[in-house]
Amino acid sequence: MDFSSKILENAVKEVSRLPGIGKRTALRLVLHLLKQPVDATSYLAEALLNLRNNIKSCQNCHNISDTLLCDICSNSKRNSAIVCVVEDVRDVMAIESTSQFKGLYHVLGGKISPIEGIGPQNLHIESLVEKVAQGTVKELIFALSSTMEGDTTNFYIYKQIEKFEITTSTIARGISVGDELEYADEVTLGRSILNRIPFSDSLRN
Amino acid sequence: MDFSSKILENAVKEVSRLPGIGKRTALRLVLHLLKQPVDATSYLAEALLNLRNNIKSCQNCHNISDTLLCDICSNSKRNSAIVCVVEDVRDVMAIESTSQFKGLYHVLGGKISPIEGIGPQNLHIESLVEKVAQGTVKELIFALSSTMEGDTTNFYIYKQIEKFEITTSTIARGISVGDELEYADEVTLGRSILNRIPFSDSLRN
Repeated sequence: MDFSSKILENAVKEVSRLPGIGKRTALRLVLHLLKQPVDATSYLAEALLNLRNNIKSCQNCHNISDTLLCDICSNSKRNSAIVCVVEDVRDVMAIESTSQFKGLYHVLGGKISPIEGIGPQNLHIESLVEKVAQGTVKELIFALSSTMEGDTTNFYIYKQIEKFEITTSTIARGISVGDELEYADEVTLGRSILNRIPFSDSLRN
Repeated sequence: MDFSSKILENAVKEVSRLPGIGKRTALRLVLHLLKQPVDATSYLAEALLNLRNNIKSCQNCHNISDTLLCDICSNSKRNSAIVCVVEDVRDVMAIESTSQFKGLYHVLGGKISPIEGIGPQNLHIESLVEKVAQGTVKELIFALSSTMEGDTTNFYIYKQIEKFEITTSTIARGISVGDELEYADEVTLGRSILNRIPFSDSLRN
């Protein structure tokens, strides 16, 4: 691309470093900002800097938080005996939006992935094992994505905590509510038959 | 979306104001920044603020520029007698990348669009007519997109300048180089037959 301005070129370069944003999209976004009032750009820049400099990680669950202890961990109405293990903050948001879970979370910060160079020491696994060792946690729910990396991570954690007296569970895999059976993949359909539940239980939801 | 942090929510809100970026994408981008070194966010914020506060519009062609007169207008090797009328800076970049045009540009800053409330007074049309009235411009090339708005804008400008002795032209419409005829739309194919050129001319390119 031939830029008529170094300032424009630099802005496009920085924006295109973001994942999934190429040079063309970056140029479109940057030209959009130029057409908006100056305030729009100031607010955006301030919000990003404020985020990067002032955001905290909850010291109990490692979720993103404004305070040392996040709103969920500091909420006395939540059941601290049940802990749901998730990959990142987006999973917390997704589960919270269902309003079906009243326990606490533990955010690992990723999955074990040798290909990407992420080992157990790069994730918040040690603090999870410590939490379990203290004995206040009664049930651990694994809610990682069901990929090779997710399964590896689940198994690694399971091996670390199996010596403790604790119930472990994993979220149910099956056909999405509203989906047609014929379009489901065979692995999911197979699991949903193996892990079938009493019909009376399905009436609760 | 249930955000665990106001700072995060605010950053996502500001990023999702950008065109074509929804809340989910904004969250993904923002979480990416959190995983990068602090510098990455500082550079991005600085580049955007620098762009918004220090960028200039070339006083001759209205192209985005770091200086009062852009590199193209201040280049004495370019032919100032031929002016190519374009919509915005992206069109200048596209034409420049062909290396086929050695004249100057005139960036309108948009197209006449009553639906979007953009009239001739919102575009750099007056300065173009003044430029033509001064008599130094010999040819005006219309290179707007061939939409209703583009055609309207072309026609409006044409009406303003037809009293002057000046050649006007429009870029050729036709089948893209390398495209199959059978997949071309009929309007384009029709025009490419009406506006056929001598075969010997086609050998120049």
